[in-house]
Amino acid sequence: MNTELIKYLSSFLTENRLKRFDEVIQHRTRHITVVLEDIFQPHNASAVLRSCDCFGIQDVHVIENNYRYTVNPDVELGSAKWITLHRYNRGLKGDGTEKVPVAYSGNQLATSDCVAELKKKNYKIIVTSPHKNDCTIDELDLTQKIALFFGSEKPGVSSSAFELADGFVKIPMVGFTESLNISVSAAVTLYTLTSRLKKSNVNWKLSEEEIAEIKLQWIKNSVPKAELLEMEFYKMKM
Amino acid sequence: MNTELIKYLSSFLTENRLKRFDEVIQHRTRHITVVLEDIFQPHNASAVLRSCDCFGIQDVHVIENNYRYTVNPDVELGSAKWITLHRYNRGLKGDGTEKVPVAYSGNQLATSDCVAELKKKNYKIIVTSPHKNDCTIDELDLTQKIALFFGSEKPGVSSSAFELADGFVKIPMVGFTESLNISVSAAVTLYTLTSRLKKSNVNWKLSEEEIAEIKLQWIKNSVPKAELLEMEFYKMKM
Repeated sequence: MNTELIKYLSSFLTENRLKRFDEVIQHRTRHITVVLEDIFQPHNASAVLRSCDCFGIQDVHVIENNYRYTVNPDVELGSAKWITLHRYNRGLKGDGTEKVPVAYSGNQLATSDCVAELKKKNYKIIVTSPHKNDCTIDELDLTQKIALFFGSEKPGVSSSAFELADGFVKIPMVGFTESLNISVSAAVTLYTLTSRLKKSNVNWKLSEEEIAEIKLQWIKNSVPKAELLEMEFYKMKM
Repeated sequence: MNTELIKYLSSFLTENRLKRFDEVIQHRTRHITVVLEDIFQPHNASAVLRSCDCFGIQDVHVIENNYRYTVNPDVELGSAKWITLHRYNRGLKGDGTEKVPVAYSGNQLATSDCVAELKKKNYKIIVTSPHKNDCTIDELDLTQKIALFFGSEKPGVSSSAFELADGFVKIPMVGFTESLNISVSAAVTLYTLTSRLKKSNVNWKLSEEEIAEIKLQWIKNSVPKAELLEMEFYKMKM
């Protein structure tokens, strides 16, 4: 059914557009996935989405323990449209827009939900932290699927994520300043890991089924009034 | 004289501090240098300085054709103190704080000054641009000293820099979004190039003389009232 729907909706897009989809999807991966935990500065979340798109990461998991996730369109430049977002916000109180620093002891239900979901899909939980001497982005084992946790700007990754982690990774740094902004550190990590992945023997590519699913999402995001057309398609099939 | 002055001023710092200086300086390089041309958003300039410090780049050249260079202390986190800044601003009009997009035809005298200075020091001028199909950060030849040009947020690198360039470099990207924010792109480029440099046979380390010069700068930046003490030192020597 998906194949037929894709074919139908595709007829409303230019050939160039469809060719671009086919090109980009060849480089997409779910072998590495990104998890953003309580990122409260929209420009940071947005810059990470843009890096994910640029380096071929398809899935981003957004944990909203204490902050509602928002993006800044001037920074993400439309990249959010091409990423598959997974949101977790069990226990989020209020509208989650308060900009107060949260204690580690805050709500962490959404973190456990996200980790459970990822472990079910055989992801290793890898927390990015400059303070843990586990391994560097040049050494991290990539044979198994990995979910990279990036924590919030102030307190960093939550204690739950630290406890549930299968490992830690850091960017080697040699200066006086010992941390990088989250958007910078995500980009360096993602570029390095995806480059390594593509040089490796690991099968990082999407399955045919995943390709169809993502292409359908992209087409729906690109065709004007896609929902109405989809309904029309189903009616025709009845 | 420098050695004696260093010794004298060092006596006002803790041993831990001096040990940290010795550690960090071992990883500093002038083989790669960074040039920022008309960056008008203080948080971008600041984030690049922070990445330079983190990845061991000692020199940053700041071109002020149309905008006065400023940093944001919340972003640079003190890293500016550890970097050697070289500023070029011949022809800069007014106070350079106007936030209007500049035409390529604007003042570019400072760019020529900077390029002339760098060529005198045997640097190859490499302009970072996603639009030029020259080579990627994984391929760029590192045998000769290179000066990496990062252009301003809106128009990008000036036409002068493009004309005077010895080569171009880009970050391979595979998504729909075809550019990265300047702070992100600088970090990815610097991390990748310094990693490659350190694995190569290139002699990227500082000379003994450069080490002394930079250490003196760091010490002066760290000792309270360093100027008074320096004067006192010279008086003692008279």
